[in-house]
Amino acid sequence: MKVDGKEMQAIWVEADGGSVGIIDQTLLPFRFETLRLTTLAQAAHAITSMQVRGAPLIGAAAAYGLWLAVRADASDEALERAYAVLLATRPTAVNLRWALDEMIASLRNRPRDERPDAARRRADEICAETVEINAAIGRHGLKLIEEIAARKNGRVEVLTHCNAGWLACVDWGTATAPIYMAHDKGIDLHVYADETRPRNQGASLTAWELGRHGVAHTVIPDNTGGHLMQHGMVDLVIVGADRVTAQGDVCNKIGTYLKALAARDNRVPFYAAVPSPTIDFTLVNGLTEIPIEQRGADEVVHMTGRTNDGRIETVQVVPDGSAVANYGFDVTPARLVTGIITERGVIAPARDALAAAFPERVETPPQSATKVAT
Amino acid sequence: MKVDGKEMQAIWVEADGGSVGIIDQTLLPFRFETLRLTTLAQAAHAITSMQVRGAPLIGAAAAYGLWLAVRADASDEALERAYAVLLATRPTAVNLRWALDEMIASLRNRPRDERPDAARRRADEICAETVEINAAIGRHGLKLIEEIAARKNGRVEVLTHCNAGWLACVDWGTATAPIYMAHDKGIDLHVYADETRPRNQGASLTAWELGRHGVAHTVIPDNTGGHLMQHGMVDLVIVGADRVTAQGDVCNKIGTYLKALAARDNRVPFYAAVPSPTIDFTLVNGLTEIPIEQRGADEVVHMTGRTNDGRIETVQVVPDGSAVANYGFDVTPARLVTGIITERGVIAPARDALAAAFPERVETPPQSATKVAT
Repeated sequence: MKVDGKEMQAIWVEADGGSVGIIDQTLLPFRFETLRLTTLAQAAHAITSMQVRGAPLIGAAAAYGLWLAVRADASDEALERAYAVLLATRPTAVNLRWALDEMIASLRNRPRDERPDAARRRADEICAETVEINAAIGRHGLKLIEEIAARKNGRVEVLTHCNAGWLACVDWGTATAPIYMAHDKGIDLHVYADETRPRNQGASLTAWELGRHGVAHTVIPDNTGGHLMQHGMVDLVIVGADRVTAQGDVCNKIGTYLKALAARDNRVPFYAAVPSPTIDFTLVNGLTEIPIEQRGADEVVHMTGRTNDGRIETVQVVPDGSAVANYGFDVTPARLVTGIITERGVIAPARDALAAAFPERVETPPQSATKVAT
Repeated sequence: MKVDGKEMQAIWVEADGGSVGIIDQTLLPFRFETLRLTTLAQAAHAITSMQVRGAPLIGAAAAYGLWLAVRADASDEALERAYAVLLATRPTAVNLRWALDEMIASLRNRPRDERPDAARRRADEICAETVEINAAIGRHGLKLIEEIAARKNGRVEVLTHCNAGWLACVDWGTATAPIYMAHDKGIDLHVYADETRPRNQGASLTAWELGRHGVAHTVIPDNTGGHLMQHGMVDLVIVGADRVTAQGDVCNKIGTYLKALAARDNRVPFYAAVPSPTIDFTLVNGLTEIPIEQRGADEVVHMTGRTNDGRIETVQVVPDGSAVANYGFDVTPARLVTGIITERGVIAPARDALAAAFPERVETPPQSATKVAT
């Protein structure tokens, strides 16, 4: 997407053909700086320090990190070490392991002198595949926005929660892909971006992304969406997801469920936009089967921002001695979800529909599985 | 209520019998300082600068401010000037005007030498009446908590939003009155206090109050309540209200509606605790009849807290150039409200029930009014 007029992705190979460029996302939204990674150690640090974050981008960064390692030393030993170093950067990131396994599979049985080029090719492919999946999500989601634009007089109002944007996904984003495509097509639209406490990724990343690309948007406190929907100020809600179950329950950033309730109460369509690997066909009931991560109190107790004189400062916003709870995610039951926007189209949040759209992902044929279960 | 073991109210007459004590609420939750007001100008400044805030407390502070003025000069001219000065401190506060009118009515036809004592008496009464109304709300709400405690094994879990506490109300608070009474009775209870962005009154005031009185509590981001209710972690929700309509629609701090939706979706009882003057019998449909104040962007864009080295600092948390919306309140429709806790008991959120509880407030008998309307 664009940053103030210039086309960018969240990761790229530099013109020298031997280094990788990234945006230092820890400095956003107040400073935009790019970094040049030339070594395995730098790539690993970029992931560990969250200069790059978001599952698809972490996978891409790890793939390029392996390429940088192989350029320096193409031995089996170096390959194994690089795999271990990169895998340890964010141990729970499923996408990270997948990308590294893909890289190793494409390199293992090759002569050493072919490995650098092969690594670059496979890392490029992993990026391109990610971008294409998100673009497909965008094309399917775009139709939903176009339908609203066609029947509505005036701009289309979209509400989103947290950051499921291009910064996390190499390009396009998931929830944001339909928004960017609609904007690029000249559809009059405006986005309400939930601040998304405690980590504020809505205010600091989604708003920054939308602003740099030129998409009209308004940052709102997480408390606000219900009021907007009550007053007809939101035409559709699009969020990302960390996990979707076989029956269409959506696990996403904490607070998503509250917005889904308001959407249902006010007949506003509510969509989750996800690449199909996010759908976990081994899970059915998201509320009982997905453990919700409790994160550190620090994210709630402190807020970081820019002072009047330009310093980045962290302040405590909860009294000394008060306990704090920080649940990272919640589960929106499928009954509140209008549809799941995937790279294969908008799928109903129901077991049969999701299985029919991704038959290769379901081990037992969905019809018989349903029959056994009932 | 207690502050670290010592019984306090949010305003008091000092032992010298000639000055008024307040807590400087602008310094909370990080510094607890009391101030001594001896002049009209100081009282007016305390209200303007929000050292005292909350409708009932503003009324009480204005009443004592008039007393301080009359002590210095009991002439009609001085009385009129003090009335004008105090009324101008917070022009939209209904309670402020009411308290000042009460004070003037009790002083106007008295000899000058009796005015200081009469002013002190009436100001004391205004405070005592406020406290008694809140205590009555507490006694009625306490029964709800006792019922849950009687049938539940383990502590009672209450969720509240924003600050409807004793800091705003001289003593007890509205939503907090049942909580303090239950705690003081030895009932095992725990409060989830919504942070309440953008102004954070939940994190900075409710949490502080509860902590100083010794009530177990946990500060949560506003996004969290739905998840807690889905998992049976909340037994009841109690909030305050800025306005309740004749049919029981509840206008309260933005985000209240989202919590009410989650409560309904998970069969958690949802109560608003309000002194009956908060019920506006001239309004019926809160959604269409109550204009929602849009406040300054600054409250969303900035956060204030304490730095690591103890300074109070304000930081910007929204990117430059992003628009911001700041709706102060939302309306929870009566259909989502379990009951209105008033000084006369817990009333069903319905036109007939509210009118029957406060017949003196309703000009047309409710039955015939309803008939005309249908």
